[in-house]
Amino acid sequence: MAVPTGIPIRLADVASAVGGAVVGDGEVTVLGVASLDRATSSDLSFLASPKYAKLLGDCEAAAVLITPELAAAPGKCANRIVVARPHEAMLALLPKFYRLPKRPFVGVHPTAIVAPDAVIAEDVCIEAFTVIGAEARVGKGSWIGPHCVIGDAVTVGEQTRFVSHVTLYPGSSVGDRVTLHAGVRIGSDGFGYVYANGVHQKMPHVGACRIEDDVEIGANSTIDRGSIDATIIGAGSKLDNLVHVGHNVRVGRLCLFAAGVAIAGSARIEDGVTLAGQVGVGGHLTIGSRAIITAQAGVIGNVPAGETWGGFPARSHRDMMRSQAAVGKLPSLLRRLEQLLKSEDKS
Amino acid sequence: MAVPTGIPIRLADVASAVGGAVVGDGEVTVLGVASLDRATSSDLSFLASPKYAKLLGDCEAAAVLITPELAAAPGKCANRIVVARPHEAMLALLPKFYRLPKRPFVGVHPTAIVAPDAVIAEDVCIEAFTVIGAEARVGKGSWIGPHCVIGDAVTVGEQTRFVSHVTLYPGSSVGDRVTLHAGVRIGSDGFGYVYANGVHQKMPHVGACRIEDDVEIGANSTIDRGSIDATIIGAGSKLDNLVHVGHNVRVGRLCLFAAGVAIAGSARIEDGVTLAGQVGVGGHLTIGSRAIITAQAGVIGNVPAGETWGGFPARSHRDMMRSQAAVGKLPSLLRRLEQLLKSEDKS
Amino acid sequence: MAVPTGIPIRLADVASAVGGAVVGDGEVTVLGVASLDRATSSDLSFLASPKYAKLLGDCEAAAVLITPELAAAPGKCANRIVVARPHEAMLALLPKFYRLPKRPFVGVHPTAIVAPDAVIAEDVCIEAFTVIGAEARVGKGSWIGPHCVIGDAVTVGEQTRFVSHVTLYPGSSVGDRVTLHAGVRIGSDGFGYVYANGVHQKMPHVGACRIEDDVEIGANSTIDRGSIDATIIGAGSKLDNLVHVGHNVRVGRLCLFAAGVAIAGSARIEDGVTLAGQVGVGGHLTIGSRAIITAQAGVIGNVPAGETWGGFPARSHRDMMRSQAAVGKLPSLLRRLEQLLKSEDKS
Repeated sequence: MAVPTGIPIRLADVASAVGGAVVGDGEVTVLGVASLDRATSSDLSFLASPKYAKLLGDCEAAAVLITPELAAAPGKCANRIVVARPHEAMLALLPKFYRLPKRPFVGVHPTAIVAPDAVIAEDVCIEAFTVIGAEARVGKGSWIGPHCVIGDAVTVGEQTRFVSHVTLYPGSSVGDRVTLHAGVRIGSDGFGYVYANGVHQKMPHVGACRIEDDVEIGANSTIDRGSIDATIIGAGSKLDNLVHVGHNVRVGRLCLFAAGVAIAGSARIEDGVTLAGQVGVGGHLTIGSRAIITAQAGVIGNVPAGETWGGFPARSHRDMMRSQAAVGKLPSLLRRLEQLLKSEDKS
Repeated sequence: MAVPTGIPIRLADVASAVGGAVVGDGEVTVLGVASLDRATSSDLSFLASPKYAKLLGDCEAAAVLITPELAAAPGKCANRIVVARPHEAMLALLPKFYRLPKRPFVGVHPTAIVAPDAVIAEDVCIEAFTVIGAEARVGKGSWIGPHCVIGDAVTVGEQTRFVSHVTLYPGSSVGDRVTLHAGVRIGSDGFGYVYANGVHQKMPHVGACRIEDDVEIGANSTIDRGSIDATIIGAGSKLDNLVHVGHNVRVGRLCLFAAGVAIAGSARIEDGVTLAGQVGVGGHLTIGSRAIITAQAGVIGNVPAGETWGGFPARSHRDMMRSQAAVGKLPSLLRRLEQLLKSEDKS
Repeated sequence: MAVPTGIPIRLADVASAVGGAVVGDGEVTVLGVASLDRATSSDLSFLASPKYAKLLGDCEAAAVLITPELAAAPGKCANRIVVARPHEAMLALLPKFYRLPKRPFVGVHPTAIVAPDAVIAEDVCIEAFTVIGAEARVGKGSWIGPHCVIGDAVTVGEQTRFVSHVTLYPGSSVGDRVTLHAGVRIGSDGFGYVYANGVHQKMPHVGACRIEDDVEIGANSTIDRGSIDATIIGAGSKLDNLVHVGHNVRVGRLCLFAAGVAIAGSARIEDGVTLAGQVGVGGHLTIGSRAIITAQAGVIGNVPAGETWGGFPARSHRDMMRSQAAVGKLPSLLRRLEQLLKSEDKS
């Protein structure tokens, strides 16, 4: 786990950092953060939902970040910091308690191989064994971890991080403040063949693959380049591990794709769409902005903006749940129904 | 994206290269290829299906490759090259407009580590940091990208390409003109354990893993070795990203597996089978030649040759669609049906 | 495939190694192991299930390991070694016939980069281009393959093997006798964001990722670290390829997860659970000990211990199969049912 800073922080200072109010002893200090059921007397914990309020009963934490609604919930832990949104408060607090990952050095590791005509900003960190191709560009403040392969003519923006073993095929581009986790592949050839002369002939893929600003892509995910158009992951979108995005797909801004999602070629995913785990989206479809697709759904038609769809084939979540409920009742009805139809036939 | 050659090509020369006929001005030149909705006045575009004919209306392209049936479709773009199969024409044209990937050098990069008794053809390209084990063989014209690990006694054919970060476990073999994309794993141990003495004991995997000629395997896909038999991917088959093929699976010739497919151990996939995205195939099953399995289907029984199956558990596509339609209608019928059965019970 | 030792072994010696009895000629020798349909006259084969007894008919093997129940089954191969559990016998025999993978050397390859303050046991093998970070520890007898990246403060136990291209994020820990296959990622950040100020803000992940003793994880699988708690894979559990385990998930002992499984955050999988291929498990759920989830199921509620569940949404296997059967019959009933309801409405 991340190494704690080891510096004790007073509850009064915690409260002031997050705009909260201390109930109890503001002079008490904490050293780290833990969940309600695992916290010890040196930890700060948090409670944001009534669902978990019962865990407060035996909680050993020194203090709890808690919403106004739950501030008076019963429990051993008397020190509470009341704050409207405990999860947002955690965003601000975690960097105070833990040493978050940072660049081990500035410069280019002696084992890295950088093409002479690559354009590398002065304050980058390029770690061991990374290979950077001809005419590639890496912007200032970026951190390229070990064992990455950045192809010819790739553009990498500023303050961007590649964790390790990342591949960028030639000509791909990645924006500012992007994180690509270990094993991500950007700009691989799409799955396009023409059946001719008795074999599958490969369609050359000459399109782009563009990862916009503030995107994060999880470990071992793959984003194919376009065939002749571009594949685009829009600004601020976040993709989990083992996600596949096919050629020519356009993903909008601020989307969330959970692990195992696969999107077939030329689909268009508009802004703010959520795809839950293992969702599949067929080729050439459009998923409207802010739509939510529930886990394992298989989308085979367009989805209107703002709707929640699920199941296979995907349909509105309400229809899907009603159908599933009906299917659950079906076996018990079926025998009687068959008898009924049989008696009708006779009558 | 791929770098254009920058060399203008006359429409007359385009037409002659693909056996087509120019309608309009054969002296006009083009520099690249783009889709109908994105083409500019220096681009060639293409239209192969009436479905997209409406995009011709505002198309800015210098010329359009078009089928005889659509040759007279209305649109701004007056220059047309009429050709029976525009997609096949593109196969021939793309390499004229773009610089496709090619080997950066011939030889072995000084940072690569090649075992003294490995047999490496003279005109290969072996890039930085690649490791090649004892008694491995790499055939002529092959291109092994950076950061690959080729285990002991692996055989790699001719004109084959490994993009980067590819692992071949010891004893695997790969044929001629194969492409393995970034992060592909060939010959990993299969998932086989014997529960004995209270634990899962690992079955040693001593079988082969053989990738035949003209196969392409997408980024981060995994092909396990056989337990004692071989796992085989047949000639000309194409696998997309994040595909899993289990131990002892036999895949025939010219199959197509889309992204996210998972095939359990000892299944047999005959020639020309298509598995759409996220399909799962159970162990020890046979999918007959030229069968098509639709997206997300879960195959738990043998599939006859030539049929199209889908759903979970997979059944013929027609049955599946009829069942799905029936399920969709079910909720609206169910209450009335329950009333009817209740009144029957009373009567 | 694995290289045979080339040393002939007498059937009498095979029988004595596995506690079996020779029927036929104990002086006959064998050189390897093969399946019934592929064995040649120098091979030992095996038959454990009546399902495959018909393959004995034409089997060319020198001898067959066979259960007492099947010992008299008809077939060409007269030499039989009768043993209660042929699969267990194979566990003992395979290492006698084949050279299993072993460490190519003891020590640290000159191209590996090991931080000065890392603590490396004396008899490890650390292969080419592997990078080991500050304060990391690697226990005795472990074998770290080429191209691995072991982050700062990672702990690796004894007799553990990382095949190649494995990434361990800082602070992760791995026990004794663990195998991580090529491309495994341990301790990547979980998928956690807080939507605030119009963007998805990343929740720093400071939790641990702990892989206990005797775990095996398949190629390209990903195990996220905890947010503030730990993600744990319990002792003796085995994960196949392309499996995803989200943040804070607790996996018990002796679980089996087949390829393509995805487990969302904070789920709890108790001891001895089997998840078949492509199963998805929702966040914060519990799957009770020894439960079995069948292929492609989508679990959206808690599963009681010891039960077999399947389908989407997952329910008990029996209910699921009955529902599926009912759905299959539904289309043929539906028209008649609609007519019946219509006539009822009229009456």
